[in-house]
Amino acid sequence: MFIAMNRFAIVKGQEEAFETVWKERDSKLAKVPGFQKFHLLKGPFDEEAGTTLYATHTTWNSQEDFVNWTKSDHFREAHKNAGSNRDLYAGPPRFEGFETVLSE
Amino acid sequence: MFIAMNRFAIVKGQEEAFETVWKERDSKLAKVPGFQKFHLLKGPFDEEAGTTLYATHTTWNSQEDFVNWTKSDHFREAHKNAGSNRDLYAGPPRFEGFETVLSE
Repeated sequence: MFIAMNRFAIVKGQEEAFETVWKERDSKLAKVPGFQKFHLLKGPFDEEAGTTLYATHTTWNSQEDFVNWTKSDHFREAHKNAGSNRDLYAGPPRFEGFETVLSE
Repeated sequence: MFIAMNRFAIVKGQEEAFETVWKERDSKLAKVPGFQKFHLLKGPFDEEAGTTLYATHTTWNSQEDFVNWTKSDHFREAHKNAGSNRDLYAGPPRFEGFETVLSE
């Protein structure tokens, strides 16, 4: 199993606007080979930075399935507006990919 | 759903030793109320810091279930040796708790 997480630092007060962007998007992930599950997660508030951590959390059968998706037309279509809503973000998203070592 | 993640920066070359600590532990998580699933995840290597990111990733029915576990005898028992194996770590673990905002 492969977990792809993208971490977003959201400016204080913009949390609801950020969630709305995700809730209203037209996702076609369910049709992508190897896709298992998507969650948008809300993390802790960073007092020092004044930002709230969010993370997208997508589970795939394998890293290969994830990489194939990033090379697809579907991926390009899903990210064509990624530059909009810049005022919500304190910086660019940070990607982290994880392989499962152990499960219980 | 609540996801509790603990992030560990592991010194280069100590990855296998760190994984062994987790594989050989006597976990009783399956018996804890509200526990859903545990994964040990291996993330990217940080070239600058010379460390590999690992994260424990535990899914709970609710944040309350997680908090109750952290106050239990079971938790104290599971963490009594947390100070050993210090040479594996580049620093203390960093905890992050996440609430699900959206699922697909």
